[in-house]
Formats: sequence, C-alpha cells, structure tokens
Amino acid sequence: MLGHHNYGEAEVRLLRVTRGPDRHDIVDLTVSVMLAGAFDVSYLTGDNTNILPADTQKNTVYAFARDGIGSPETFGLRLAQHFVDSQPSIYRARVSLVEYPWTRVGGHTFVRAGGGHRTAAVTYDGSHAWVVAGIVDLALLNSTHAEYTGFIVDRYTTLAPTSDRILAVTVNAQWRYSITTAEPARWHRMHDQARRALTDAFAGTYSRSPQQTLHTLGQALLDAVPEAAEVRLSLSSRHPAVVDLAPFGRDNPGEVYDPTDRPYELVEGAVLREGAPPAGLAWSLLSGV
Amino acid sequence: MLGHHNYGEAEVRLLRVTRGPDRHDIVDLTVSVMLAGAFDVSYLTGDNTNILPADTQKNTVYAFARDGIGSPETFGLRLAQHFVDSQPSIYRARVSLVEYPWTRVGGHTFVRAGGGHRTAAVTYDGSHAWVVAGIVDLALLNSTHAEYTGFIVDRYTTLAPTSDRILAVTVNAQWRYSITTAEPARWHRMHDQARRALTDAFAGTYSRSPQQTLHTLGQALLDAVPEAAEVRLSLSSRHPAVVDLAPFGRDNPGEVYDPTDRPYELVEGAVLREGAPPAGLAWSLLSGV
Amino acid sequence: MLGHHNYGEAEVRLLRVTRGPDRHDIVDLTVSVMLAGAFDVSYLTGDNTNILPADTQKNTVYAFARDGIGSPETFGLRLAQHFVDSQPSIYRARVSLVEYPWTRVGGHTFVRAGGGHRTAAVTYDGSHAWVVAGIVDLALLNSTHAEYTGFIVDRYTTLAPTSDRILAVTVNAQWRYSITTAEPARWHRMHDQARRALTDAFAGTYSRSPQQTLHTLGQALLDAVPEAAEVRLSLSSRHPAVVDLAPFGRDNPGEVYDPTDRPYELVEGAVLREGAPPAGLAWSLLSGV
Amino acid sequence: MLGHHNYGEAEVRLLRVTRGPDRHDIVDLTVSVMLAGAFDVSYLTGDNTNILPADTQKNTVYAFARDGIGSPETFGLRLAQHFVDSQPSIYRARVSLVEYPWTRVGGHTFVRAGGGHRTAAVTYDGSHAWVVAGIVDLALLNSTHAEYTGFIVDRYTTLAPTSDRILAVTVNAQWRYSITTAEPARWHRMHDQARRALTDAFAGTYSRSPQQTLHTLGQALLDAVPEAAEVRLSLSSRHPAVVDLAPFGRDNPGEVYDPTDRPYELVEGAVLREGAPPAGLAWSLLSGV
Repeated sequence: MLGHHNYGEAEVRLLRVTRGPDRHDIVDLTVSVMLAGAFDVSYLTGDNTNILPADTQKNTVYAFARDGIGSPETFGLRLAQHFVDSQPSIYRARVSLVEYPWTRVGGHTFVRAGGGHRTAAVTYDGSHAWVVAGIVDLALLNSTHAEYTGFIVDRYTTLAPTSDRILAVTVNAQWRYSITTAEPARWHRMHDQARRALTDAFAGTYSRSPQQTLHTLGQALLDAVPEAAEVRLSLSSRHPAVVDLAPFGRDNPGEVYDPTDRPYELVEGAVLREGAPPAGLAWSLLSGV
Repeated sequence: MLGHHNYGEAEVRLLRVTRGPDRHDIVDLTVSVMLAGAFDVSYLTGDNTNILPADTQKNTVYAFARDGIGSPETFGLRLAQHFVDSQPSIYRARVSLVEYPWTRVGGHTFVRAGGGHRTAAVTYDGSHAWVVAGIVDLALLNSTHAEYTGFIVDRYTTLAPTSDRILAVTVNAQWRYSITTAEPARWHRMHDQARRALTDAFAGTYSRSPQQTLHTLGQALLDAVPEAAEVRLSLSSRHPAVVDLAPFGRDNPGEVYDPTDRPYELVEGAVLREGAPPAGLAWSLLSGV
Repeated sequence: MLGHHNYGEAEVRLLRVTRGPDRHDIVDLTVSVMLAGAFDVSYLTGDNTNILPADTQKNTVYAFARDGIGSPETFGLRLAQHFVDSQPSIYRARVSLVEYPWTRVGGHTFVRAGGGHRTAAVTYDGSHAWVVAGIVDLALLNSTHAEYTGFIVDRYTTLAPTSDRILAVTVNAQWRYSITTAEPARWHRMHDQARRALTDAFAGTYSRSPQQTLHTLGQALLDAVPEAAEVRLSLSSRHPAVVDLAPFGRDNPGEVYDPTDRPYELVEGAVLREGAPPAGLAWSLLSGV
Repeated sequence: MLGHHNYGEAEVRLLRVTRGPDRHDIVDLTVSVMLAGAFDVSYLTGDNTNILPADTQKNTVYAFARDGIGSPETFGLRLAQHFVDSQPSIYRARVSLVEYPWTRVGGHTFVRAGGGHRTAAVTYDGSHAWVVAGIVDLALLNSTHAEYTGFIVDRYTTLAPTSDRILAVTVNAQWRYSITTAEPARWHRMHDQARRALTDAFAGTYSRSPQQTLHTLGQALLDAVPEAAEVRLSLSSRHPAVVDLAPFGRDNPGEVYDPTDRPYELVEGAVLREGAPPAGLAWSLLSGV
C-alpha cells in the first residue's frame, strides 16, 4: 500500500550576476524542488505520464533565473506557482533555497563571508502559499553571562553546577511569515531585522539554560519582525570544557578551554505569536495530509 | 507563546568491546537522546528544576553500555524507558542510534566496512514504545536495466527519453516494526532480512523510474520482514551522464560516464502493510501533539 | 621572481562500464592531472601560448577512457605519457587516481564498499616513469594486543602507562614500485598482496607503539610485494578512552570506550628495501628541482 | 630499512579567553605538533624511551596557553622551542596552527566569521627557527575582467576562447618570513597587510589566466609585506558555466551560471623576493634531510 510520496530535483546550484553600468551584483543559491501530486502510478507501475522530470525542474530554475532572482522568497514563489499552475498532476510544490553570503570588495569583486546562510522555503498548493525564511549555521559565542544550576541530580549526574560558563551555540532559525507577497526589498529588510534580533538578543541575554536562550531569541525575533508568526529554533550547544591545569601547577580561572566536537546538546523549540494563523503547509509538504 | 519543544544529548560516541576467551566482539555506535516533557519553565525563565542535563544523559548511555548493547533496538529501548520512567518531568524519550559496520579479520581485529550504516530509533511515552530500524547511505548501482520514457514534456524539457541508463542511488530506508520486544538476535535477523531484501530487489528490478524502484524496494522489504508495518524510503538518484566523445571522433555506447555530484533527484515514499497499526510516535516525538 | 609552478585539472569524476555478454564491470575513479613545463610566461604575462587548458585535460581523460581503464596504474601511465609526449611545453606530468570500491551483487548490480580507497600516482618526465600505488582511509582496530609504556615523563605528563589498550588507526599507505610497465592484472595482484599484507600484519602484531606498528606494516608490505621499493605510511591513531564508570558504582574492565574525534596522534614513516632505486619523481613533480 | 619518520599530536582544539574589565577577547585555534628526532628504536622495536607521548604534547599546548597566545606565530615558536630544548631526543619540531575568525558583536559576544582561516607554521631545529604564515579557504570571485584566449588547441580541445568570464577561486596562500622574532602586534599587522594585498590585487587585476592572477597576488603580497621572503600560492579555480538558455527561447548575456563543484583547475606557484634567504626548514620538517 503506497503511503505519502513526493519527489523533486535537489541542490541545483545557481549563480546569478546582474551587470550594472558601474557595478555588478551576485546571488549565489542552491535551489531544491519537491513536488506532491498524482504520482501513484509512477510508483506502482513506472508509468511516467504524470511525472515532470527532475531534469526539467532544473532547467526551469535556470530559465526563471534569467528574469532575475529578486529575493529567495520571491524566486521560490515564482517557481512553486509555476510547477503547480502549469501541470495538472502537480498538487503541491515546495521550493527550498539556501543563499551563500558574499561581501563586496570592489565593483565586481566579492569575498565569501561567514555568519550563517540565509534560507527560504516556499510551499504552494494551487490556492495558497506559505513562506518560511531562515538562517542556518549561525555560530555564536558568549564568553560569560551564562550559568547552569538547579538541574535534576540523579545517580548518573557528575556535572557540577556552574555560575559562569561559556555558551557556544550554532543556531538554526526558521520563521514563517503571515504574509505571502511582498517586494524583494521588504523580504530583505525583514531578514535583516530577524538576523539582528537574534544576534542582539544573544549578546544581551544572561543565560540560565540554552532553553531559556532559545526562547529569548525567538521572542526577540517576533518582536523585531511583526510579519513573523512563528519561529522554530534549534541550538546545537557545545560546552567548551575548562581544561584542568592543576597537574601542571597552574590555575585556570576560565581562560583555557577545550572546545569539544561531540557530543553536543541539541535544544529545539517553537515560539508563536498570539493569534498566529495556522501553519498550514508552511513547514512541510506533508502537513495536513 | 512557547510551542512544541524538546532537547537532548546528541551524538554520544560509544565503542563497546566484549572480551570472550577466544575472540572479541565490538559495537561502534553514535547515540542521540531527545526528550519531551514539563520543560516549559526552563524555556520561559531558565529554571532548570525539571531538566535532566544533557551531560547526565551522556553518562547514562555509558553506564548502561556496561551491561551490554544487545542490539541497537534493545539498547535504545532500555535507555528510552529509563529516562521516562525515572523522571516525572520527562514524558517522552526518543533514542536514535547509528551503528558503523566493522568486518572481522582476526580474533580481535576489525576493518571498517562500507555498505551503509545500520540505524535504530526508539520512542517511549511511559506506556507504549515504538521501534524503527533503518539503513542509511546504502549506495547501489545498476549499470543497465533502467529506462526513462513517457514523462511530461513542457517548454523547459531538454531531456531525451532513454531506453538504457545507469541507475545510481543512495538509499535511506527506515521501517517501523509492529513489535516492540524481541531478543537481540531477532532484531539482528530482521535487519539482515531487510538489507538483503533491498539489495536483491534492486538487483532484480527492471526500473522504469526511481519512483517505481522505490516502491519495489519497499514491497520487497515488507515481504521479507513480516514484523515491518511500514517502510519509508528516500532515494537520492544521481544519473551519471554519458560523455559525448563525438568531438574526439569516438562513439560512446554507454561505456564512459561522468558521475555528477549535484544536482540529484530526491524521491521519497512510504509503503505500508495492509492493516498496519497506526504509526503513533514511531516517526517523531512530535507526532500526535 | 617566479619559483616552482605547475597546474592541472583536479578531480575529474569517471565511471567506466564494460558491458560483457553475461555481466558488466565498473570502475569508479577520480582522476587529477598536474603538469610542469614552460609555463613561466603564462604566470608572468597571461600569455597562454604554452598552456593546455584544464578543460582539455578533462576531455582527454574521458576520451582515453573509451579504450578501457585496465588498472589505475596503466591508465595513469597512458595519460601522463600523452601529455608530455604530445606537447613540447609540457616537461612533466603527474596523474593521480582514486578508485572507489564497489562489490558485485548481481550481473550488473553493485553496492559501494568500504575498506579504504585504492590510489595510484604516475609521474612521467619524457624519458622515465614512476609508479606509486596506495590505499587511503583504511580504518583498522585491534581491541587488544597493544600496550604503551616506557615513554618519556616530563612535567606535562598525565598519561599513565598501559599494558592493554585499543589501537584504532586510519592507515594511508603509498608505495613506489621499482617497475614501470606491467599488465593490468599484475598491478591488481600486487595491490591485493599489499592490502592483505597490511591487514594481516596489523592483526598479527602485538603493538608497543603506533610507530612500531607502522614499521611492521611497512616491512610486511615490502616482504609481500617484491616489486615495491619503498612504502610511506601515515597512521592517524585515535585512542578510544576507557570511560570512568566508578561514579556510577560500576567497574569498566576495558568494555566501554569513548572513541574521540580529536585530537589524534599522527605517525609517519618510510620503509625502504635495501638497494632500492632512487625515488626520482615518484613522490612529487617537484623532486629533483 | 627505516627512512624518514616523525610523529606528533594533531588537531588539538583550543579556545583561549582573555577576561578584561570591560570586555573579553577570544582566540579559537587548532594546534598540531610534529616532531623529528632519535625515534628509530621506537619504530624498530617499540622501545619508547625517546618518545614524548602525543598526549603530553596536548597537555603542553594547554599549559602554555595559560600564559596567553600572543599571536599564532609567537605561540607556535614557544611550543616548538620547548619541545626541542627540553628533550634531547627531539631534534626538530614543527607546530602548525589554524585560527578561526570570530567577529565581535558585544563585550563578550562573538559571531563566527568567514573570509578564510589564518594559519601559521613554525619549525625549530635547536638553533634556528622558520616562520610561515598563511590564509586558507579564502574564496574570491570576479564577475568580469577575466578572459581566456590563446591557449593550445589539440584534438581534445572543445573549450572556446572567451573574452569575458567569471573567475571564482579558492586561495591558499602561505608565506615565509625572513624574520623569526617579533611582538604579536607585528605578526598581526603583517598578516593584515598580506590579506589586504591579496584581496586588493584580486579586485584590481584583469586576468588573462589563473596563472597570471596567482603571480599577481604573490607579487602584491611581497610588495605589501617587506618581511615576507617567499609566498606559495594555490588557486582552486572553478569556472561557473554559462547556462544555455536557447532551448527555452532566452538569451544569456552572462547572467545565469551553474557554479560546478568538480572538476576544478588547480594552479600552484611560488613567488620569491630577489635575494630571499634560503627556505631551510620553513616548508617541511623533511627539508634538507
């Protein structure tokens, strides 16, 4: 018995150059398409009558890029609507985009930057669209203003409470908007506001737990971006270990740390605005199935 | 407004050696724990009263390993039940395990093998458990017996139908069992049957589409493992491109290929047994929230 | 002042299928080319008169693959000789190949295997060729028969001597041959002998140090492959840590380990056959400059 | 017969926090140590009398960090000199460091940045030291001012000459200094000058070939940093492909590109200052063996 199913072209790489008289602009994207629809017969018998090949999806990404990207959100919307509106067998489309940051250092020269990647994911079902924006791999570190006390102690506890520790997290934030149409400049501005809110909230928060930090980041984002209805956050928290220097006759007042790779604490949570509209298909093609 | 939330220790590395008189056995695991429960106050205020630290979860993994692993499924069950049953604030636990394969080449000597990793994910909510087993990163290749024809042609189509192509896929298969208790040997045997079913079905299927191949793999697994109620498959399909050698005065009758990295086609689908029990929390801590 | 310089096409991916009446064979390679020659003017002024484009090198790899691979060594020799012999501006060529292992599970079906990758590197200078073969990423583990004692103790020592530890190493072995021409079958056979020698020596050696293990592996390889003149080995040695279970009231007689990621000990060394011919350009295009 | 050999502790992760009254500073390093000396007997017999364990090297890195890092160069010098000067069996030491960039966003808050990693490698042989500094993974892109014409055309050529293409390179630059002692501030300043020289030269150069670009970058660095005697550069050049949009009835005047992953052109070269001192052990523990 065939259950839910979907397919699409993943990780189409796209560099879009806009050539102005005085300077160039670039957008560096990875675009993934996922489609749901009347594909049962292809799964059951290999009859591809209803299948738009992944290769064609790739071509469509490149052809649509000819008219400009605008913003990841608008480019995703155009693509998602095209797939559903042009093919009767496609009921739902989800277009996911990752934009890699480049910093301008000249009229036509750029250096690849850090600070996390911008993401967007647009879902369209033929009548409604949902837009999610995000930041992934945003690494933040507070060298103080973090404690960890008052937790459960059981027979497997060896961790001592600490009143001053380093909080080093990699943030993945995804927020869904209550709006679905806007000019590219507005999508850019909202994303800038969201990023700044996350960074500022992290800098300004005295952390009693990664959970509390997560909630504070989510609140700050909703405060800064009125169009955001919900934000889902995951924090990968690596606690750099204070190295014991006593065997070498030295103290270590929080100066020398071993920033371990694994394991790490993974903290997840959603923060919603009061009265947020229902999520619909914002988070997944499968929602509401 | 705080939405769903959960946290846990991710990627605890564990090597378990069993020292027999004549030979040693090893199990090489990565274990991740995720917990849901009465954690609101920690998110909202940083009060950790209800929080079992991630560090303690790691200790628990190591302490429990002292009594042996059994199988990934039984080890996951023991851990998940412990977390929920020992702490009133923990309502649900999910333990995910990846086992890396090693081939024996001596009484105490092993070489790291390929062929995909074995996975297990166990969820427990205080009264019921769900067990999912899986294989990830299983790379399979058929050098013929694959065609691709009859698909939708639109204005963005450039792909020509082909009656003989290479099918190169990376398989990720996850199946949930209708049983929750068994001896380690039975979990091992079911996993072996599942793996063989996937490989044999791939070798034995003439493929008209990756979708059809996916469904065939799923059916074969359900046929081979009566205890499996549902299997979810994802196939990352990279189509090696026939290199055009005509500019060099040579033909290329399907002998020289460029196996591209990106993009790739991602095909997903679930295959369920008729009358399968409901999935419950098998696939996610969030199910049923 | 321009110093040494060279350029080439790196990481050409190549899948070669040989279609027999009853079964297919596949070879999965990554091929990199590096050239040295009269390229000064391109570096100094951008005049490309003497430059064979990297794109053409890629084409050449695919065109040559049409006539079969034979073995990585013979394919590398053909390519290296072509570049030097066909272009007066190219004085030296080095072709490096990595072959990914696939295990046959049907007449035309294969599953990607583990156990390390086979490598070859061929250098040619117009009159002489040098052939190096190798294995990379061969992960081996002995769960006993390793000790570590008698080392230097200084004021920074905390490591206790141990009479029984786990030796887990990733081996990279590269050996140069004293021959430069052979049938593919012979190159295959020598490589099989080398691999078996490494694995058997690792299984059969009681290790007092990773250094000693390295030397034993090198000696075994030279003993097993008379055509090998020198072998260069590097062992990345990760010492799984015995987890202290005492806080949980449990002993740990070498059963529960934490296999850490970083740091690791890196041990390198060369083992040469008495009377080995000089290395010439075997190890680098730059040798003898 | 044992040839050259050496060993050491690789990839010690180190986070150093300096806690000022108003603000904190952090340095995030990976430190690797490699030693050469009288280690033959350990390789040949497993006698570790002359071996300073890798674990002790790790401890030493942490203990030395207690007194501050200064700069990667000064920290490397202190460590290398310690190993050689404190142990008669150690003749040469090489300490390699990678520093990950973090941008300050608050008094004690930092966000992980991009733009390549700073490296240093210090070698010491008991009487002389050599200091190499570098930048790795510096991704630069010019969207115009690059051409590629006049190259060799042979029977495998399909590439057309182009008068306007994108030049996208990942730069790895390593330069050796003619000085071996300096205050940390001076090492920082020279590194800043080198980085700016590379970026400015890339932005300001009309490129006829990646080889020419490499040489221009090298010259600019030597001009900007008088203390640099030689710079070794490698450029991984990925040529984004202009996507053919003609099948979709669209032109593509250099606006839509597919930035491919593999293969890529690898261009290497050294640029030396006239009268540069000999390299000695700057580039390798093995030099001069």
